[in-house]
Amino acid sequence: MDLSNLGEFGLIALLKKSCAATYSASVVKGIGDDTAVLKPGKGTNVLFTTDMLVEGVHFTKSMSSAAVGHKAIACNISDIAAMGGCPQFAVVTLGVSPQTKQSTVTQLYAGMIQTAKRYNVAIVGGDMVKSSKMLINVAMIGETIGSQAILRSGAKVGDAILVTGPLGGSFRSGRHLRFQPRVKEAEFLVRNFKPTAMIDVSDGLAADLGHILEESRAGADIHAAWIPRNKGASLTQALNDGEDFELIVTLPASQAEKLLRNKKSFSFYQIGTITPRKNGLRILNEDGARVLTPKGYRHF
Amino acid sequence: MDLSNLGEFGLIALLKKSCAATYSASVVKGIGDDTAVLKPGKGTNVLFTTDMLVEGVHFTKSMSSAAVGHKAIACNISDIAAMGGCPQFAVVTLGVSPQTKQSTVTQLYAGMIQTAKRYNVAIVGGDMVKSSKMLINVAMIGETIGSQAILRSGAKVGDAILVTGPLGGSFRSGRHLRFQPRVKEAEFLVRNFKPTAMIDVSDGLAADLGHILEESRAGADIHAAWIPRNKGASLTQALNDGEDFELIVTLPASQAEKLLRNKKSFSFYQIGTITPRKNGLRILNEDGARVLTPKGYRHF
Repeated sequence: MDLSNLGEFGLIALLKKSCAATYSASVVKGIGDDTAVLKPGKGTNVLFTTDMLVEGVHFTKSMSSAAVGHKAIACNISDIAAMGGCPQFAVVTLGVSPQTKQSTVTQLYAGMIQTAKRYNVAIVGGDMVKSSKMLINVAMIGETIGSQAILRSGAKVGDAILVTGPLGGSFRSGRHLRFQPRVKEAEFLVRNFKPTAMIDVSDGLAADLGHILEESRAGADIHAAWIPRNKGASLTQALNDGEDFELIVTLPASQAEKLLRNKKSFSFYQIGTITPRKNGLRILNEDGARVLTPKGYRHF
Repeated sequence: MDLSNLGEFGLIALLKKSCAATYSASVVKGIGDDTAVLKPGKGTNVLFTTDMLVEGVHFTKSMSSAAVGHKAIACNISDIAAMGGCPQFAVVTLGVSPQTKQSTVTQLYAGMIQTAKRYNVAIVGGDMVKSSKMLINVAMIGETIGSQAILRSGAKVGDAILVTGPLGGSFRSGRHLRFQPRVKEAEFLVRNFKPTAMIDVSDGLAADLGHILEESRAGADIHAAWIPRNKGASLTQALNDGEDFELIVTLPASQAEKLLRNKKSFSFYQIGTITPRKNGLRILNEDGARVLTPKGYRHF
């Protein structure tokens, strides 16, 4: 059965029912009115973000719809985690053609809902539009775990630079469709340490660390050999492949030592140190010689 | 100059600067980090909504980009107004091709920013994706003006049904690109009366009133002659054309009388009365005979 049989309002009624499985007491009114009505949390800061996946750019027809749905929700959760936050609510815009199979959409939502439930996110609204290429836009609200968000701008000279997991080859390996956003790692960091800056790796380690350096007006020395790499990933891939969704975090050196000594259930890998701005971003080989820094992924 | 000259990050830097014009003290961090960081308002309810405009469906290349930008922001504001709310923050996903002219995007944002400023909405973040058809998805946060949101589900038998302005022919006349969302009217209603249900006309009067009736488990008698129509709009158009963005509101009859007697700067037009559910939606001519009710716009 394709969507033209079910009709727009039929599809909305179906999805409304499925999404209700994600609601908690903080959802006064979910899907089914002009907007969602939500009880704000106790946090002092609201976090607000959005990310879109487009067929042919971020995923292809041959990929599992459930996995694409997972990714659409998880990449927004990852952004909220990278602020030291906890995700709460999402609205979803779906662009589909009338020839899209109903099962494609229900599987997409099943994937979104499973991940939303896992991370306590309620899917509370959305929009539906006609589009020849499938589109999934998610906007998400969260709140900070601590009293302040962890921005990109707080890294200080001497801070250690760490990542939460191995990098590279995410798209080729299909890992970009099944990654788990680092919400627990972010919460652990915020509750036990004082991260000075944090970002998730979506454009590639070099590009995203570059954002921290730009906002913090700092440089960095990265030791190529210290970068944890996924199986089969080259250094170039670990530096430049996007969509790893690991966190890059900077911490005062003494805190990093404590973290690396005491690590329990979470993995953290030091990859380098923040340096003065004039040094720029240097990727060093084992002899301390400089390795070239290629650019991360850009849409155009 | 097209966007491939400027590059994705160049474009983001340009838009970040323009959007900063919309910030107030409640924006701790706007565009330029993983998420926006916002100070929540004093409201007890957060409103959250999203709407997408797609080239070829909601607008065409020949339309003014600034007007399309206005519409993208204004239709979300309209949804928040329809809940008895006040809009606060927006994030924007823009889908463009590398061949898009830079001026098209800057004019689009100029239109969005002008409307955002007019309604005190801060544009605090977004995403940028590659797309052959231009896409603009806006997600918006607001808060209720009163202690509760005005849902679609509260209309009671005997309530008067009113609209805030004339209907029909919005797309043909270009009015869908320059309408002003009824934020002030909604605030006036919430502060001075007890609206039982409210919705904005996006799918057409018949379809959107239908949503109120469905959620409120009620029927309605509408007097065809009482429906205010835009110049040149037929009854069928006034009933079924989408994108008028006027509010439909239901009020206890005594309050409606008071409202219609005392109206000052705002226009309200009674168009009918809520009836028991079994009566359904009846559109009556001057003799009280029933007129057929066609359906509102559906995407598929």
